[in-house]
Amino acid sequence: MRGDRVGVVLLSGGMDSAVTLAEARAMGFACAALSFDYGQRHRYELEAAKRVGAAGGVCRHVVQHIDLRAFGGSALTADLDVPKDRDEVTMAASIPVTYVPARNTIFLSFALAFAETMGATDLFLGVNAVDYSGYPDCRPAFLEAFRRLANLATRVGVEAIERGEPEPIRVHAPLLDLTKSQIVRRGLELGVDFGLTHTCYDPGPDGRPCQHCDACLLRAAGFREAGVPDPALVRYGLEG
Amino acid sequence: MRGDRVGVVLLSGGMDSAVTLAEARAMGFACAALSFDYGQRHRYELEAAKRVGAAGGVCRHVVQHIDLRAFGGSALTADLDVPKDRDEVTMAASIPVTYVPARNTIFLSFALAFAETMGATDLFLGVNAVDYSGYPDCRPAFLEAFRRLANLATRVGVEAIERGEPEPIRVHAPLLDLTKSQIVRRGLELGVDFGLTHTCYDPGPDGRPCQHCDACLLRAAGFREAGVPDPALVRYGLEG
Repeated sequence: MRGDRVGVVLLSGGMDSAVTLAEARAMGFACAALSFDYGQRHRYELEAAKRVGAAGGVCRHVVQHIDLRAFGGSALTADLDVPKDRDEVTMAASIPVTYVPARNTIFLSFALAFAETMGATDLFLGVNAVDYSGYPDCRPAFLEAFRRLANLATRVGVEAIERGEPEPIRVHAPLLDLTKSQIVRRGLELGVDFGLTHTCYDPGPDGRPCQHCDACLLRAAGFREAGVPDPALVRYGLEG
Repeated sequence: MRGDRVGVVLLSGGMDSAVTLAEARAMGFACAALSFDYGQRHRYELEAAKRVGAAGGVCRHVVQHIDLRAFGGSALTADLDVPKDRDEVTMAASIPVTYVPARNTIFLSFALAFAETMGATDLFLGVNAVDYSGYPDCRPAFLEAFRRLANLATRVGVEAIERGEPEPIRVHAPLLDLTKSQIVRRGLELGVDFGLTHTCYDPGPDGRPCQHCDACLLRAAGFREAGVPDPALVRYGLEG
């Protein structure tokens, strides 16, 4: 890492986290990636996360296994049917099947632990404008509250506060104001290979996107609006 | 649960969390307990947590397995020697061997997920005055920051804020201003059986306390100052 600042990037393997990683690298950070196996049915995304991390030049990649099913079946996702072919109004009006209670709070807490272990102070996550409506834990007020918490939770933060210095731990959400099509364009500018990313909630055994779940539909709309084909579809011989 | 409010109690199996559970029950909460297997060498405490939870009348008890070793050996505890026979000044001047990066942030995040799954809004943890000096994440400012975060992270919190109502999620630390001896006395008032609790960082295979680690020494001082024998020592035929 030779003097580079290190950032911890939450890397799901989807397009948002891939672009977030590229943004962090473009800002000059050496990046350590953190992914979660939390019983998601689209566990194929962890393979995508590995590919995306390697292509994005991460210096480390840790996968945390957490079991949120222990809290009760209704909270988790793997046993539910994935809704198909819904319009965006219907999607926005319901809790997504991938909803995990307190998800970003848990993910950022682990990212903070990872950062503290390495002496790093910068956390990156790929929340964006599309996530706003359904998820409280994707909004700016949440991110600011986590930033504040993180500085009060750690020695490095508390010591800076006691010295009257700026709070060192920062939470970066570089896609926060971007739509899906803007994320596609920004990723292409940064050289992201979207063919490595995975988005589908209900993929085939080979990772082939279903093209009908909410995530596939939002992704397709993003590429369509950006006016470019989706290389992850082309990869499977599907129409990008 | 028949109309009782439900609280989520972080239950390590030590004396502090046992008294915290008793306080929550005395406040009228039905209690769901949450414990963690995070590779701690004193995993025997999980057996104590089960006993303490059962004796304390919890309605559910979930053990989460998390692996913080994945972040690197230096951060974790299980491979380090447990210091013995240190005085309190030495203890206070160093990071405890049980230090886990961002521990209370992670634990409270899972507690929040558990609460959200059950529609509960009250979280309990046993931090107290003894913990202050070494751990930023045991201080009132941290607890207040987590409370704020929790309300911004969840639908129930955000909806209340939007309606101008009080923030529903609360973080209770009923031992916050108590010393160890005060915790002993309060526990006895509440009927806590301290013989079920486990504190030692380096127990024998049968859970027998070493009586020399920091945790044993602090506990012994608490019972001595409270003027009562420690039934967990008596249980092993040791001098309480």
